[in-house]
Amino acid sequence: MEKVLVFGHKNPDTDSVCSAIAYAELKKELGMNVEPVRLGEINGETRYVLDFFKMDVPRLVTNVTEETEKVILVDHNERQQSADDIHNAKVLEVIDHHRIANFETADPLYYRAEPVGCTATIIKKMYEENKIPMKKEIAGLLLSAIVSDSLLFKSPTCTEEDVQTAKQLADIAGVDVESFGMAMLKAGADVRDKSAEELISLDAKQFQIGKFHIEIAQINTVDPNDVLEKQAEIERAVNATIEEKGLDLFLFVITDILNSTSVGLALGKEQQVVEQAFNNPIENSKIILEGVVSRKKQVVPVLTNLLEQKSN
Amino acid sequence: MEKVLVFGHKNPDTDSVCSAIAYAELKKELGMNVEPVRLGEINGETRYVLDFFKMDVPRLVTNVTEETEKVILVDHNERQQSADDIHNAKVLEVIDHHRIANFETADPLYYRAEPVGCTATIIKKMYEENKIPMKKEIAGLLLSAIVSDSLLFKSPTCTEEDVQTAKQLADIAGVDVESFGMAMLKAGADVRDKSAEELISLDAKQFQIGKFHIEIAQINTVDPNDVLEKQAEIERAVNATIEEKGLDLFLFVITDILNSTSVGLALGKEQQVVEQAFNNPIENSKIILEGVVSRKKQVVPVLTNLLEQKSN
Repeated sequence: MEKVLVFGHKNPDTDSVCSAIAYAELKKELGMNVEPVRLGEINGETRYVLDFFKMDVPRLVTNVTEETEKVILVDHNERQQSADDIHNAKVLEVIDHHRIANFETADPLYYRAEPVGCTATIIKKMYEENKIPMKKEIAGLLLSAIVSDSLLFKSPTCTEEDVQTAKQLADIAGVDVESFGMAMLKAGADVRDKSAEELISLDAKQFQIGKFHIEIAQINTVDPNDVLEKQAEIERAVNATIEEKGLDLFLFVITDILNSTSVGLALGKEQQVVEQAFNNPIENSKIILEGVVSRKKQVVPVLTNLLEQKSN
Repeated sequence: MEKVLVFGHKNPDTDSVCSAIAYAELKKELGMNVEPVRLGEINGETRYVLDFFKMDVPRLVTNVTEETEKVILVDHNERQQSADDIHNAKVLEVIDHHRIANFETADPLYYRAEPVGCTATIIKKMYEENKIPMKKEIAGLLLSAIVSDSLLFKSPTCTEEDVQTAKQLADIAGVDVESFGMAMLKAGADVRDKSAEELISLDAKQFQIGKFHIEIAQINTVDPNDVLEKQAEIERAVNATIEEKGLDLFLFVITDILNSTSVGLALGKEQQVVEQAFNNPIENSKIILEGVVSRKKQVVPVLTNLLEQKSN
């Protein structure tokens, strides 16, 4: 049987890496020849998680179809967030919790999206549906993914189902959610040794909305000033990215995980759509994003609506 | 709570109508304010099924957002197969068994596609997952949808899961699959009193593939000659449709349900891609489609691949 690669999005976060590992494990138990891989460098938070549960870092792959025709996507579906050669691959399955866009297949497939806070929540349910017992370390990875995506259940994307699932996973993994969760978030929020280029690319996603190409990056911190002290350097890096990719807008969301709020840096010719979206002025490229912690729920939909209107 | 409309594709077939009714019933049991509706006239087969199980014909709706913002799609996802104003609606859920294309949302949603032969097979499973007992007449509708989509289990789209699900549904509904199934297929295959316009529109679906716009219609018959005796009239109707919609290709698949094979009528400037796809000559606009009974599995993928190549 031809091997199937399982992977999350580019600039992988903890959900993309851990859900790929856990779903590949489930498919292996069900008899499929699969390997979890990643499309980019792992971040500090994910490294902390993999170390903690003594799991290997998945192999880095850039062109998936050099190895196989068949792939399974977790935690994403949009073409520009996936492998560069995704248009040549046959997508067998998608397990995701995002909006659907820029996704097209020639054949029917298994597609499962649920409006929950984390792909890991869906994968936990699929273990149950398939009656496959879950190993301790897999439970640890899936728990970490939920903590990461929900910022310890503080994000508005977090549902009651995510919270309940996390509790069950913590029991299986044998860890305390609060103390383990805060330790892993802090491991990911250590921004001091990162260059401007790293800061804006660690968790960056591109979106095509109507005629506009935008990129929204996000970084978690325990103090946004740790990032903002490098503002001039970051702006140079963002402007270089805008130039290189032909972007209409780059929004860098700097999230304060202790106070559950954010500051944004908005650059590019569609900058003022961010002012409109959040009803706040941009001053010195900065804008206060009061109470914003979720790109998916608090940033993407409002920008999508405004930019779609501008496209018509 | 704002009402949610549940509907299948335009030119509704038995799966689109029956799955909408059955899924709306399930969501009602789960406490949602829903109504199943239809986007077009029902065909003879579906009318036979609704009469047989003494169920009402769902209400016809053309512009869904005149009534509500929220919708659930069954048995389709592609924009051009959906309500004319689907771009203004908020799609809460999709339950489907087709490829995904021309589908985009601003927000996360519940999307469930499985590569089975019929939407009804997925809906039967969802009743079980939600532990909702199924009424006799709902089982009858879902059974009819499977018989219709699988041509009594003869289509290559039909999976073992569809067959097993149909058996369980027949037990609940209290009908004999073979005799009931053949009676309903024959009710739908009675083409004698239909005009050329009706023949080519009863089960027609539009597809956008790369830069090409195509339409593929299908009709079931017990004898293709009953249709082909009206060939001149049909060609005039097809050419009018090509003109009106700006199509590059119209393929009319006339399926012989007794012998599980088809004849095609191919018109439009991309006609010769059909010759290439099925490796047979077109003579007098006609082409033999040996063993073809499934548009989804035996027609759409091969035309998609060829037309995508031509678009690049």
